[in-house]
Amino acid sequence: MTAMTAGPALASGPRTLRLRSVELAGGGRLDDVEVAYETYGELAEDGDNAVLVCHALSGDAHVAASDADDGTTRPGWWDVMVGPGKAIDTERYFVICSNVLGGCSGTTGPGSTDSETGEPFGLKFPLVTIEDMVDVQAALLDAIGVPRLRAVVGGSMGGMQALSWALRYPERVGSCIGIATTWRLGAQAIAFNEVGRTAILGDPHFAGGDYYDGPRPEHGLATARMVGHITYLSEESMRAKFGRRLRERDAHAFDFVTEFEVESYLAYQGRKFVERFDANTYLYMTKAMDYFDLCANATDPSEVFAWSPVRFLLLTFTSDWLFPTYQSREIVGAMQRVGADVTFAEIESPYGHDAFLLEPEAQAEVMAPFLGSLDGWRARREVSS
Amino acid sequence: MTAMTAGPALASGPRTLRLRSVELAGGGRLDDVEVAYETYGELAEDGDNAVLVCHALSGDAHVAASDADDGTTRPGWWDVMVGPGKAIDTERYFVICSNVLGGCSGTTGPGSTDSETGEPFGLKFPLVTIEDMVDVQAALLDAIGVPRLRAVVGGSMGGMQALSWALRYPERVGSCIGIATTWRLGAQAIAFNEVGRTAILGDPHFAGGDYYDGPRPEHGLATARMVGHITYLSEESMRAKFGRRLRERDAHAFDFVTEFEVESYLAYQGRKFVERFDANTYLYMTKAMDYFDLCANATDPSEVFAWSPVRFLLLTFTSDWLFPTYQSREIVGAMQRVGADVTFAEIESPYGHDAFLLEPEAQAEVMAPFLGSLDGWRARREVSS
Repeated sequence: MTAMTAGPALASGPRTLRLRSVELAGGGRLDDVEVAYETYGELAEDGDNAVLVCHALSGDAHVAASDADDGTTRPGWWDVMVGPGKAIDTERYFVICSNVLGGCSGTTGPGSTDSETGEPFGLKFPLVTIEDMVDVQAALLDAIGVPRLRAVVGGSMGGMQALSWALRYPERVGSCIGIATTWRLGAQAIAFNEVGRTAILGDPHFAGGDYYDGPRPEHGLATARMVGHITYLSEESMRAKFGRRLRERDAHAFDFVTEFEVESYLAYQGRKFVERFDANTYLYMTKAMDYFDLCANATDPSEVFAWSPVRFLLLTFTSDWLFPTYQSREIVGAMQRVGADVTFAEIESPYGHDAFLLEPEAQAEVMAPFLGSLDGWRARREVSS
Repeated sequence: MTAMTAGPALASGPRTLRLRSVELAGGGRLDDVEVAYETYGELAEDGDNAVLVCHALSGDAHVAASDADDGTTRPGWWDVMVGPGKAIDTERYFVICSNVLGGCSGTTGPGSTDSETGEPFGLKFPLVTIEDMVDVQAALLDAIGVPRLRAVVGGSMGGMQALSWALRYPERVGSCIGIATTWRLGAQAIAFNEVGRTAILGDPHFAGGDYYDGPRPEHGLATARMVGHITYLSEESMRAKFGRRLRERDAHAFDFVTEFEVESYLAYQGRKFVERFDANTYLYMTKAMDYFDLCANATDPSEVFAWSPVRFLLLTFTSDWLFPTYQSREIVGAMQRVGADVTFAEIESPYGHDAFLLEPEAQAEVMAPFLGSLDGWRARREVSS
């Protein structure tokens, strides 16, 4: 890590904001939306140090370590990047992270109670889009007094949100940092999502999504997670990490049991996931990703970036085959054709899609100076105000 | 196609041979094993024109087109390569193809009746290996009077059998042609197989493998097939074939229905598969592939090829990420280090692993002359006899 080792950031701890209603991109409205969020560091007087971090499919608001009530430290999902002295330095920036709309970690989602019925929504919860997630984040920032963002940052599905922020709220965003992400999900990634959904929907405990009072569709969700995990790693890293090694045995069992280490790893990932994640939210998140197409309404992707005041930084990883570099290159090309301010780097890494969680140094090397410089933004703000 | 268009080959039609017993590599023995096979063309008087084709995971003995009883033509799974005038020319070669041990298309497998109980074996069927499949094929050839093979050919799991033939019966094999295959399955491919098995084993209709009298684990098997299909295609070909196109609609449904063409394609592949394939056989075939390690007992893979009299041809495809080229290069390198006779070609193709079914011209270009030349083999046979 490039970062100094330091204690947990000055953290707000989990908080919840209630929004009276949210209008959805797919039509319809959600009332009484709760948004779970956390903040780290302090908002500067000039308000120019706010950084919104957007989480990926299975993330939550707890992006960085904080002190728990019992005196222990509760690790965050992006501790390698966010904290005192880290690339997203909580001694310098005011970092906000919220659980996305449709989530299962505090923000209203399919597992929340539908006030009309007094029961959990289940599949009666409306499909939400990346744009809806972003609109909820914007409403949250309004409510907590953060009128503008120095940067919005995210990896994977978080990167989709960051890109969407730049288009929906260009005047509120200084920089957009999208990591291991894409401007529209490709056929292969949609296909993997559909396999996961098929596994969940076919679980006998799924019960049409109304399983909250009984056994949960754990087998389906675990299977979905197993598929997902394969796509987060690279062939290369799986080879290095597991190869053909057997777990706790010297010879094949000649039986249908877990034998290879890679099988054991996937089974563990599946088991661990069902303890903390809701199957319905998995359905909603994957669908939101499938629907995401940043330039869906443009005849040429370049259009949407013409005159954009936002500075873009896009990072990809060589071995990420789920969100392959060529997709970021496409959108970087579109930005460049209209003279948008874009920096792009492909980072050499064997870790596949998960590299955004595992390669702090290489990301920090580009991200920290990019975040540090906001002269352009200040100048633009002065001109436009 | 390079091939002339010609009618179906002179074909034997489906036949069955019964073997009294088969000793298995994993220990144990199977009695009364039926082997479904078909032949095409005629065995030459000198016996030098026999070509054994080995099928992949979901294949069967019907490798090439033949006339059905009702006067129609029944297509074969490798019509593009096998038939009159094709690369594996049934006017020149005597082609044999049999359903593998553990299969569900005529050869004894988990769906066959266990003579001890009078019920289908289910999971009481012993785990079979690629080596067992090959031994059964060798017994079949003994029984039908084919003492030696000009070539043994196969793609994917069929290629594993071809490689295994070359090591188990080197004196009976002139050439070994392995296409889109590997000498040992890698961690990522094992992981995908495990996802498929998990989907099947968790299907409530699986019933511990004893589902033959009731509803079958169709959902699990279809899910497994969906995952499989993604790995058979390349990201590039999925993008070209489906992109983000919606099926029969202009806008998103905002509901959990099949919307994208790629989803519809996968669902169709899943549905079609369960009509013709047995879930238990899927378990056994994937396990046999996982276990396959051609050089498991050697300290150096080169060892097993020292003094091998077999000519090898290994073909891979640039976009095949399930059986990537590097794996074939590894074994080609091992062969070369001990001076084995090996030809290797990586064929440029966008079709991923399925290219062995979809790229007849490029395969024929290398394979037809390789098959045509057997001077070396004849000379060796004369020396050794």
